[in-house]
Amino acid sequence: MNTSNTLFEKHRATLDAALHALTVRNYYSPYPENPRAYAEDADAMAKNWISACMNNNYTSLDQTEANGWIGEEVSPFLQVGIGVKYPAFTPETLLKNGIVAQAAWSKTSTEQRTGILIEALDRIKSRFFDIAYATMHTTGQSYMMSFQASGPHANDRALEAVVMGYKELTSVPEKAEWIKNLGKFDLKMNKTWKAIPKGISLVIGCSTFPVWNTVPGLFASLITGNATIVKPHPKAILAIAIVVEELQKVMVENGLPKQVVQLGVDTLENPITKVLAENPMVKMVDFTGGSEFGNYIESLPKTTFTEKAGVNSIILDSAKDLKAVLGNIAFSTSLYSGQMCTAPQNIFVSKHGVQTEEGIVAYEDVVKGIAAAITGLVDNPKAGPGTLGAIQAEATFARVQEAKNLGGNLILDSKSIVNEEFKDARIATPVVIELEKNQSDIFNRECFGPVVFVIKTDGLADSLALAEALVKEKGALTCGAYTTDETTKAMIAETMNNAFVPVSFNFTGAGFINSHAAFSDFHLTGGNPAGNASFANSEFVSKRFVWVGNREM
Amino acid sequence: MNTSNTLFEKHRATLDAALHALTVRNYYSPYPENPRAYAEDADAMAKNWISACMNNNYTSLDQTEANGWIGEEVSPFLQVGIGVKYPAFTPETLLKNGIVAQAAWSKTSTEQRTGILIEALDRIKSRFFDIAYATMHTTGQSYMMSFQASGPHANDRALEAVVMGYKELTSVPEKAEWIKNLGKFDLKMNKTWKAIPKGISLVIGCSTFPVWNTVPGLFASLITGNATIVKPHPKAILAIAIVVEELQKVMVENGLPKQVVQLGVDTLENPITKVLAENPMVKMVDFTGGSEFGNYIESLPKTTFTEKAGVNSIILDSAKDLKAVLGNIAFSTSLYSGQMCTAPQNIFVSKHGVQTEEGIVAYEDVVKGIAAAITGLVDNPKAGPGTLGAIQAEATFARVQEAKNLGGNLILDSKSIVNEEFKDARIATPVVIELEKNQSDIFNRECFGPVVFVIKTDGLADSLALAEALVKEKGALTCGAYTTDETTKAMIAETMNNAFVPVSFNFTGAGFINSHAAFSDFHLTGGNPAGNASFANSEFVSKRFVWVGNREM
Repeated sequence: MNTSNTLFEKHRATLDAALHALTVRNYYSPYPENPRAYAEDADAMAKNWISACMNNNYTSLDQTEANGWIGEEVSPFLQVGIGVKYPAFTPETLLKNGIVAQAAWSKTSTEQRTGILIEALDRIKSRFFDIAYATMHTTGQSYMMSFQASGPHANDRALEAVVMGYKELTSVPEKAEWIKNLGKFDLKMNKTWKAIPKGISLVIGCSTFPVWNTVPGLFASLITGNATIVKPHPKAILAIAIVVEELQKVMVENGLPKQVVQLGVDTLENPITKVLAENPMVKMVDFTGGSEFGNYIESLPKTTFTEKAGVNSIILDSAKDLKAVLGNIAFSTSLYSGQMCTAPQNIFVSKHGVQTEEGIVAYEDVVKGIAAAITGLVDNPKAGPGTLGAIQAEATFARVQEAKNLGGNLILDSKSIVNEEFKDARIATPVVIELEKNQSDIFNRECFGPVVFVIKTDGLADSLALAEALVKEKGALTCGAYTTDETTKAMIAETMNNAFVPVSFNFTGAGFINSHAAFSDFHLTGGNPAGNASFANSEFVSKRFVWVGNREM
Repeated sequence: MNTSNTLFEKHRATLDAALHALTVRNYYSPYPENPRAYAEDADAMAKNWISACMNNNYTSLDQTEANGWIGEEVSPFLQVGIGVKYPAFTPETLLKNGIVAQAAWSKTSTEQRTGILIEALDRIKSRFFDIAYATMHTTGQSYMMSFQASGPHANDRALEAVVMGYKELTSVPEKAEWIKNLGKFDLKMNKTWKAIPKGISLVIGCSTFPVWNTVPGLFASLITGNATIVKPHPKAILAIAIVVEELQKVMVENGLPKQVVQLGVDTLENPITKVLAENPMVKMVDFTGGSEFGNYIESLPKTTFTEKAGVNSIILDSAKDLKAVLGNIAFSTSLYSGQMCTAPQNIFVSKHGVQTEEGIVAYEDVVKGIAAAITGLVDNPKAGPGTLGAIQAEATFARVQEAKNLGGNLILDSKSIVNEEFKDARIATPVVIELEKNQSDIFNRECFGPVVFVIKTDGLADSLALAEALVKEKGALTCGAYTTDETTKAMIAETMNNAFVPVSFNFTGAGFINSHAAFSDFHLTGGNPAGNASFANSEFVSKRFVWVGNREM
């Protein structure tokens, strides 16, 4: 571990800048999001890398006591298996190796871990293009989103967790001389405090954001001294495998066991998640995915951090420029084919229409306008394919096709469009369905994928009440609202905030409610049914260790 | 609420000093623990107050919609009922009034709440002597302990919670202008953040420390904007009633509803605790008491903070001055008749004896020495009565009498001693019982009260293994250890700390493992079975609110 303190010094400036950003919460990122900011040949090399990777064993990961090779990922762009196989381990092996690694990792200092983890993020940065292609061919995200979401934006969130951890871990001194004057004499004690890691951490990934949703929990557990098992979704392993590979390399360089971070791969047929999650050696579980499994995870008698399903609403009350608003909504619903946890699903519009600078736009015209804006976006060959990407799962594709039969009024049907680069891509444009306010059995649940419901309400108060009832019951990650009236704005903010949902007001142009920026926006509040975690409030790290103080006379 | 910002300025110096103390964790208290530091007539006035109070209705508390008067407290010193009756409310009334008060309290700013709560602590300070007598005649604590534990030490812990709350609530800015350069233009957003209180808080008190164990949760919930219902133990109401009274007065002075803090009294026959705790309007529960009820509280689908039973050990390996050690142990086990959650119960001693500067003291002599030290303390008329106080509950008294029949070897029987001031006091000196290491069915559970087990082990490693197994199974609030060997010390620290138990080494003289000082020692770690809370780590406040951020373009 001789280089670790050097690593802390090496990355001190990044740490300090990130600490400052967390305090002021303005824009900050040490990892450029524009691919052009990187080496010119980086993309070409990554293309070669993924070609060589496909249909081969992924041999650069730890294979100690592995018992075979497994992998069943399918590219949504090619609709064929990518053929990558990963070392397979029994849960018992993962736990046994984790316990040994935990003993070593828990003995490192906060400074050592901080240096090692920021160094690892630098190594991961050198793999951003590999990670981009790996993400594309497992999730169906477009090239640009794959690069940004799994690369710089994920690294931002990982760094945020490291820095929040550093902040919490250094909030109590290592020692103090405690002196209490008792009149005739002083009572003196030497005191020391240690943050004791809770133990093995399990991070369960999802199929759509295998890196972005995994690294916050992974790095939060690591900075607080806990050896971590990453259990990726069986259909989205390759991108996070690169992250684990780079972490393992940096561990070994610093004299630590590779198994501080392990990749526990499984298959749909032989899942290992519950066996791991229920084992008493696993002290904390991070989970991203469906609500049913998420509720099961939360019911386990251990520390849990969940991001489950939510239903995101847009409340459309009034707008300066309705065209800009509809364009923004069209992009938000189409981006990655609505497969983002932050994608809006329900658009609440008053039957009396929407007030604009040019007067009231009738309800029917607003509904048509939403459909037209989506059509304009997806039919534009320069914008459509790159915005939509591909549909990750067959089940999502089927759900979109079935949506028109749910009972609403079909405004715009889903269709496929041509992606010139990937002719076989699984593509579905958003389906737009109009619903009456009493059809809450349809709109009060998540229809994951490109499904948009426009709900006709009796006015703003009604829209707000419906949105509020929905988030209280099902939760949400975000809420969009458009209003030019300050009183209305305050009312929407208070109502939704009191239900622990953040609101994004009047987003147009390059701002989209789907995006949550590290160091500024909390991702999830942890206070509504969409999940109990928040990336990254202080609890997101402090629940992973325990302060223990010793005293000596 | 016009005076609240003035109150913040008034108490700013205290806030700053307390914030600093939390950072460096040296000794700090703004509330003197020596009764002589207060007005000369304060004690006499308090004696008059308690005399007037007894056998009367407690009319200075909120009585809105009360439906009668109840109270069944018994003085352990007098062994007669004190006859104080408190306004009785149905759970529905408490919750309904709480919801109204919550709406007002949650709208106050962090600064307003900080000012109001530190002001309330000043008013409570002016009642320390009343609180002392109220504590004596409900818990059986001696006068000095009643004064210190329910007065200055409780106020310290309350202030600690307020200040930790202030720190967490100000860790995120109220607003920021977020500007991201996108090359050709800047993406700009105005962002705001709010800490949204979770809702009504329920704080369930215990019979032995009705103020000290109640105010941390009470003030933590209040500083984070949550209206709070205090549900005291039916046998220990009066002291915390004074605290609630002073809080209600300060609320009203600041234009806020009294019901921001309510006292929900019940009786053993008609308890209201579960009805309140299970109501969905109650969002968080603080609890101090037995493990069975504490486990039930933890199982509720809400935020919980528990302090349950633990079993505290002393590991006696080696000592410079064994006499000083035995005297310290005798005091720790006798103080308030072992009715402190931090009192040691199990003393692990090697069969090979204890190494001292004068050579090895044989195991049998150590056992005898413990008994002799306790006898010396309790038989000293100047020290005994004031150290022991009285036994709070009949059940505890009975348990002590029965201890000799548990199966161990009786070394020192419990007895009564004379308290000149209170001839009818319920008094029991510690019983000392010797056990073999295989009698863990006897020593591996809490025998609340003055019961001391000396366990004969095969040596240090054995003592440590037994203590470790015990804390992993049953938890502990503290562990005392005596050793002159640095390697042994490190081994004990690592073993117990990894089981999330703090260790106090080589305490003699005026330092006792029973005492945890605010602003320095965490009370409970929250990581072992003795409870999930820690007074006051950042989680102790941050779990009571949710960060929500809005964005606007």
